[in-house]
Amino acid sequence: MPISKRMAAEFIGTFWLVLGGCGSAVLAAAFPSLGIGFAGVSLAFGLTVLTMAYAIGHVSGCHLNPAVSFGLWAGGRFPTGDLLPYILAQVAGGIAGAAVLACIASGKPGFDLVASGFAANGFGEHSPGGFSMEAGLVSEVVMTFMFLVIILGATHDRAPKGFAPIAIGLGLTLIHLISIPVTNTSVNPARSTSQAVFVGGWAIQQLWLFWLAPIAGALAAGFISRWLHGEKK
Amino acid sequence: MPISKRMAAEFIGTFWLVLGGCGSAVLAAAFPSLGIGFAGVSLAFGLTVLTMAYAIGHVSGCHLNPAVSFGLWAGGRFPTGDLLPYILAQVAGGIAGAAVLACIASGKPGFDLVASGFAANGFGEHSPGGFSMEAGLVSEVVMTFMFLVIILGATHDRAPKGFAPIAIGLGLTLIHLISIPVTNTSVNPARSTSQAVFVGGWAIQQLWLFWLAPIAGALAAGFISRWLHGEKK
Amino acid sequence: MPISKRMAAEFIGTFWLVLGGCGSAVLAAAFPSLGIGFAGVSLAFGLTVLTMAYAIGHVSGCHLNPAVSFGLWAGGRFPTGDLLPYILAQVAGGIAGAAVLACIASGKPGFDLVASGFAANGFGEHSPGGFSMEAGLVSEVVMTFMFLVIILGATHDRAPKGFAPIAIGLGLTLIHLISIPVTNTSVNPARSTSQAVFVGGWAIQQLWLFWLAPIAGALAAGFISRWLHGEKK
Amino acid sequence: MPISKRMAAEFIGTFWLVLGGCGSAVLAAAFPSLGIGFAGVSLAFGLTVLTMAYAIGHVSGCHLNPAVSFGLWAGGRFPTGDLLPYILAQVAGGIAGAAVLACIASGKPGFDLVASGFAANGFGEHSPGGFSMEAGLVSEVVMTFMFLVIILGATHDRAPKGFAPIAIGLGLTLIHLISIPVTNTSVNPARSTSQAVFVGGWAIQQLWLFWLAPIAGALAAGFISRWLHGEKK
Repeated sequence: MPISKRMAAEFIGTFWLVLGGCGSAVLAAAFPSLGIGFAGVSLAFGLTVLTMAYAIGHVSGCHLNPAVSFGLWAGGRFPTGDLLPYILAQVAGGIAGAAVLACIASGKPGFDLVASGFAANGFGEHSPGGFSMEAGLVSEVVMTFMFLVIILGATHDRAPKGFAPIAIGLGLTLIHLISIPVTNTSVNPARSTSQAVFVGGWAIQQLWLFWLAPIAGALAAGFISRWLHGEKK
Repeated sequence: MPISKRMAAEFIGTFWLVLGGCGSAVLAAAFPSLGIGFAGVSLAFGLTVLTMAYAIGHVSGCHLNPAVSFGLWAGGRFPTGDLLPYILAQVAGGIAGAAVLACIASGKPGFDLVASGFAANGFGEHSPGGFSMEAGLVSEVVMTFMFLVIILGATHDRAPKGFAPIAIGLGLTLIHLISIPVTNTSVNPARSTSQAVFVGGWAIQQLWLFWLAPIAGALAAGFISRWLHGEKK
Repeated sequence: MPISKRMAAEFIGTFWLVLGGCGSAVLAAAFPSLGIGFAGVSLAFGLTVLTMAYAIGHVSGCHLNPAVSFGLWAGGRFPTGDLLPYILAQVAGGIAGAAVLACIASGKPGFDLVASGFAANGFGEHSPGGFSMEAGLVSEVVMTFMFLVIILGATHDRAPKGFAPIAIGLGLTLIHLISIPVTNTSVNPARSTSQAVFVGGWAIQQLWLFWLAPIAGALAAGFISRWLHGEKK
Repeated sequence: MPISKRMAAEFIGTFWLVLGGCGSAVLAAAFPSLGIGFAGVSLAFGLTVLTMAYAIGHVSGCHLNPAVSFGLWAGGRFPTGDLLPYILAQVAGGIAGAAVLACIASGKPGFDLVASGFAANGFGEHSPGGFSMEAGLVSEVVMTFMFLVIILGATHDRAPKGFAPIAIGLGLTLIHLISIPVTNTSVNPARSTSQAVFVGGWAIQQLWLFWLAPIAGALAAGFISRWLHGEKK
C-alpha cells in the first residue's frame, strides 16, 4: 500500500478519533439531565478506534496515535522510516477533527471554546478531579503501557483473528472509564495536541506531559512484548 | 435473491431502526430517574443496525437508509437500478415503524405526539441543544460521510469477515453519542421522514436538510473510497 | 445430545436469565445515585443470553424462552416433540432463579418482595410508565416478533458463523431499551411466570398476556421466516 | 510456554483487572454529575478480562483469578501443579495494581484510602446496600458458579472459536451489574485480597468469605461441567 494512502487513512482515522471522542465530550457529556457522562465519552473514544480499525486497519494498520506508532516500533512491528510520516498525518488529522468540532460547537449560542476548556488534557488545577501532576504522569504512563500490551498481544499471530479491533477499541474505552477524572485521559499525543492548539495557554504549557508520558509507556510495553510474546513472524 | 424479498428485508429492517431507535428515545430516554438518556438511545439506534445486519444482511445487504444506498452506489458497490426500490422500501418501513410507535406511545395517558416532537430531527429552535442550521448541516454531512467510510471499509474484501455488522452498528451508536444534541441525529432520510410525517409543521419544513446533508456526505465518502480502497473485487 | 443434558442446559440458562436480568433490576437499578437504571438492566438481560449462547448453545441451542422454542418450531427449525420438555425446563429454571434472587434480596433489611413488585411484568396500573393493556399487547407482540426475526436470521446458514449470540443477546438488550417503560419487558413467558409466582395477585392475573403475546409474535416471525429465508438446510 | 512467561502474563493481567476494575470504582464511579456509576464499573471490570483474554490468552490462558484456576482444575482443564504458581502471580499482580491505584488516587487532595473503603469487598455494614453475610455468601457462590459455567462452556471445543473472551468478559460485566450492591462483587479472591491489604481492619476480617465462596462456586461448576459437556479433547 503506498505511503500516500496510508497517510490519508491515518489522517481520516485520527480526524474521527478527535471529532468522535472529544466531540462527544464537548457536545453531549454534560447535556442537562440526558447527557452521556464520562461513561458515554469513554464508549465514544473506544468506538472511534473500533470502527476505524475495521474500516482502515487493512490500509494503514490504524494507529491514530504517535504513542501507538512508537510502541509498535519498539515491539519490532513497525519500520523506523514510517514513524515521521505517520505522526505528521495523525497530528494533522487530529487538528482537522478539532477544527470541525469547533465549527459545530460554535453553532450553539453562548459557546466559549477557551473558557470551556474544549476537551483538552490537563493536570493540577486543569485535571477534572484536581489530581496532581505526579498522579497524571503515573496514570498516563501506565494507561498507555497497558494500551500497548493490549495492542501488541491482540494483534499477535497466535491471538484469534479478526477480533483485535474489539479488544483495542474497548481497551481504550476501559482506559477512559478509569482515568478521565485524572487527566481527562490522553494516552495519545495527537489527541492532546489537537485540543491544545485551540485552547492555547495552559493547555499548551501542559502539553509536554501528554507527549512524554504516553510515548514512555508505549516504548516500555514494546520492549517487554518482545520478551513475552517473542518476535512476530 | 429476488427484489421482492430484498425489499421486504429493507422494509422490516427500517421498520426496526425507527421503532427501536426512535422508540427508545420517545418511550425510555427521559423516564423519571431510571431513564436511559442519550447514551441509551445511541446504543439502541446502533443495535437496530447490528441486529438487522446479522439477520437480513445476507438477504438485502441491510442498508436501511437511502444515504447508505447512495453511498454504496457512489462507491461502485450497488447497481443504479436498485436505488429506487430500496429507497421506497426504506421510507415505507420507516413510516410503518413510526406508526406502531405512535400506537404504543398513545397508550400512555397524556401523551401528545405533536407537542412532544416525537423523535423528529431539527435545527435552530428544534435542535435539542439549540444548534444553528449551519452547525446541523456540517454535523449531518460529516457524520454521514464517516458512517459511509466505516461501511465501505468494514465490508471491503480485505477487512476481517463477519465483523462488519459490529463496526457499522456501533459506528451508528458513536454518531449518536456525538450528535444527538445538534440535530437529534439523522444521517438517514428515511428515519427523519418517518417522524416528520407524524409531527408535521416544522418537522416537514426542516426535512430538506435531512435528505440533502446525509446524501451529500455519503456520496463524498463513496467517491473517496474508490481511491482509498481501490475497486472491490 | 440426550434430552436430559439439553433440559439441564435450558434449566441453567433460564435460571441465569432470570437471576441476572431480573436480579439487576431488583438489586441494582434504583440504587441511590449510582444505580444502573433501565439501560443497565437492558444490558444485563442481553448479556444473560449472550453468555449462555456461547456457553450452552452447543448443548441445547440456548432458547431459554418458550416463545423462542415456539418460533423456531414455526420456522421449521425445532421438532414438535421437544417443545414440552424444553418449556418445562425453562419454567422450572426461571422459578429457581427467582427463588435465589428472593433469597439474596431478602438479605437487605426492609425488603418487601410483594410490595416491591419484584421484577414482574404488567400493564395498566402495573406498567412502569402507566401504559394501557392495548399498548402492552402491541409492544409484546411486535418485540417478540422482531426478536425471532433476529434469531431466525442470525442463525441462518448464510449468516456469518459464530456471531449469532452477539446479535441475539444485544437484540434482547435493544428490546429492553425500548419497552421496559411499557410492560417492564417480557417477550418471555418463563421470565414472567418466574416473577408472578412470587408476587402473586395482580401479577398472576396479568400473566395471560405475557404468554399469549410473545408466543403469537414468535409464531408470526417463524412463518414469515420460511418465506424470507427459505428452508434452512 | 515456560512457567515464567505464564506467571508474568497472569501478573500483568491481574494487575490490570485490579487497576482497571477497582480503579474505575475508586476514581470515576461517584464523580459529581458525570460519574460512571455501577454500570460503568461493571463495564470496566468486564473489559479488563476481555482485553487481557485477547492479549495474553495465548500465553497463560488468562485466568487472573484463583477461583477460575480452581474451577478449570475441577473441570479437568488445568494441571494440579500449576495451581500454586498461578495463584501466587495473581495475588502479587493484584496487589501491584492496588498499589498503583493508591498512588494515583493519593494525587487528589483530601483522599483518605482507609476511610473511603477503597474498592474492598464486604458484607453486613460493609455491603454497599447493607446486605447480610448470608446474602453475600449465596451471591458470591452462585455468581462464581455461573462465571465458571460461562468460562467452561465458551472455551469448549464445540463453542465458536475466538469468541470466548467476549462471552467471559461481558459475563463478568453482567455479574457486576447484578451484585455490586450486595458485596461490591468479588468472585475473585485475588481482587478482594488486593484491596483488603490496603484497607486493613474490617476488610481483612471479612476476607475469608471472598476466598471461600468463589472457590466453592467454581469447584461446583467444574465438576458439573464434566457431566454436561463431557471431557474436552
